[in-house]
Amino acid sequence: MKLGSLKNGRDGRLIVVSDDLAWFADAGHIVPTLQGALDEWERVEPLLKNLHTDLEHGAIPRMRFHERDAAAPLPRAYQWADGSAYVNHVALVRQARGAELPESFWHDPLMYQGGSDGFLGPRDPIPLRDEAWGCDLEAEVVVVTGDVPLGATREQALDAVRLVGLTNDVSLRNLIPGELAKGFGFFQSKPASAFSPVFVTPDALGERWQDGKLHGCLEVELNGQPFGRADAGEDMTFDFGTLIAHAAKTRALGAGTIIGSGTVSNRDTDGGPGKPVADGGLGYSCIAEVRMVETIQGGTAVTPFLRGGDRVAITMHDERHHPIFGTIEQEVVAG
Amino acid sequence: MKLGSLKNGRDGRLIVVSDDLAWFADAGHIVPTLQGALDEWERVEPLLKNLHTDLEHGAIPRMRFHERDAAAPLPRAYQWADGSAYVNHVALVRQARGAELPESFWHDPLMYQGGSDGFLGPRDPIPLRDEAWGCDLEAEVVVVTGDVPLGATREQALDAVRLVGLTNDVSLRNLIPGELAKGFGFFQSKPASAFSPVFVTPDALGERWQDGKLHGCLEVELNGQPFGRADAGEDMTFDFGTLIAHAAKTRALGAGTIIGSGTVSNRDTDGGPGKPVADGGLGYSCIAEVRMVETIQGGTAVTPFLRGGDRVAITMHDERHHPIFGTIEQEVVAG
Repeated sequence: MKLGSLKNGRDGRLIVVSDDLAWFADAGHIVPTLQGALDEWERVEPLLKNLHTDLEHGAIPRMRFHERDAAAPLPRAYQWADGSAYVNHVALVRQARGAELPESFWHDPLMYQGGSDGFLGPRDPIPLRDEAWGCDLEAEVVVVTGDVPLGATREQALDAVRLVGLTNDVSLRNLIPGELAKGFGFFQSKPASAFSPVFVTPDALGERWQDGKLHGCLEVELNGQPFGRADAGEDMTFDFGTLIAHAAKTRALGAGTIIGSGTVSNRDTDGGPGKPVADGGLGYSCIAEVRMVETIQGGTAVTPFLRGGDRVAITMHDERHHPIFGTIEQEVVAG
Repeated sequence: MKLGSLKNGRDGRLIVVSDDLAWFADAGHIVPTLQGALDEWERVEPLLKNLHTDLEHGAIPRMRFHERDAAAPLPRAYQWADGSAYVNHVALVRQARGAELPESFWHDPLMYQGGSDGFLGPRDPIPLRDEAWGCDLEAEVVVVTGDVPLGATREQALDAVRLVGLTNDVSLRNLIPGELAKGFGFFQSKPASAFSPVFVTPDALGERWQDGKLHGCLEVELNGQPFGRADAGEDMTFDFGTLIAHAAKTRALGAGTIIGSGTVSNRDTDGGPGKPVADGGLGYSCIAEVRMVETIQGGTAVTPFLRGGDRVAITMHDERHHPIFGTIEQEVVAG
């Protein structure tokens, strides 16, 4: 089942979307918002699934789904906690910052608390007040949980996964070193993230959802050119069950908690820094990584961070080359 | 005007509370929840104020207000961002951790993104899975904002302050050094915070709300003994306008954002480390601070962190010795 929110007020209007993303049916008679659905999932999920079946069978009135009308599936949320599960990415970014990677990073998940009071829709521009802040995209996988009890095991955590989706976790790279030096983590360096047009239940992902990971090529385009083709199921050191259990170690997590994978990143087959897609490599899911590789190879980062007018697209296709979650397509608007 | 939420489902039930905290009137016919009120404050505030006036005049049916029935005024929120505005506290805690205080901390506010998916009510126990985590209280002032535009000035930020209250920002001290060393800030070390029974509009605070600060003695009791008597209006290096503007530098803030002051802390009059209340000092708003002072004076911290059965109370009284925000009274439940 695929769920989305049409732009409407602060919390959107819940819709069920057809598997091919061509049609939707309003779910407002069941529950008005996705947060509302997550709040009483046990009661609401079977009703939404029936609606989805009717939609697929053409048994109810349906309307054309346009991704441009979609808000983030959760236009605001009570929690957004982002891991760094692809330790390869963390190692490269740290190297780029001249910071060391502690050995513990390979067995103790890194996670930060993100701002969740307002997210961008999949076609919303990225507002950037100052290009000198070094705006970057970060293509990631996310899951949305139900209630997770304090001290949940990995298995309990995986049972609580309700939905899977994609995000562009916008980062202001040039603000990060200063903030991290202060010791309290990211704040100003993490403006609003954008989410895919729809989130999908794990059962509808088939073999792509395995071992607490989403498997498939995460396609990232920068200004219309292929930029990233990493597989989200590869090199993910910590699966979502482990990430959620990490978050729930000292406190329960409320329904509607969004947990992020961190920037997807694959090791290069030859063990060296990743090659660009144009050179037959898997490319990058953020600009910081290609800048790192450029620095290693030529002494200087060449690819600039995002500037006004730059365009980013993030998607993942199924076997029939249909986007699973729809496509995040954003333009940076500076000033 | 004083607002609170009775325990009811995930978001509570909005009530207007009399100035003496003895009575309440249900506000459900205006708007069911406090978040709902904040979402459309311009429309709702005059209606709630009328209800408050009627309640004060005994012009409507009223019911006894019991603080034990109260949830946190916002039982969950879309954002909880906690500053460290009392740099005296930061300096002492850093000293206790053996970490240096950068000079920039005196002019660049420190702020972390906290978890906001579930808060404790003013009488809820503090759940503690492991006493070895070093559970501490932190008595703070908070404000709740309306919508704050991206890049808001301090003045715009102050205009957006809707409500003022108190919090116990529970911290797990022994988890902090490890988390901060990882560089991503607090996560497991910050379980759910508790909030005062009511939040109060700035206009109802009179001269106590001045220059973006709450003025008055923040009374903290530990196991029934006076523990802290610091004045929240003193030694606050960054006022709430500055804290909010800091948070809004790179992103807009959604209505219902809670901004915390950080642990309230006053310098001792003689310039040395603060004295306990029993010795005529202003005491402490967290245990870490007294442990720091003990270490300086005797080489070893003596006061233990919170253990099962320990009781914490946080309040602030007005001129007639009535609690302004009600009282946070919590017992630690270990295991």
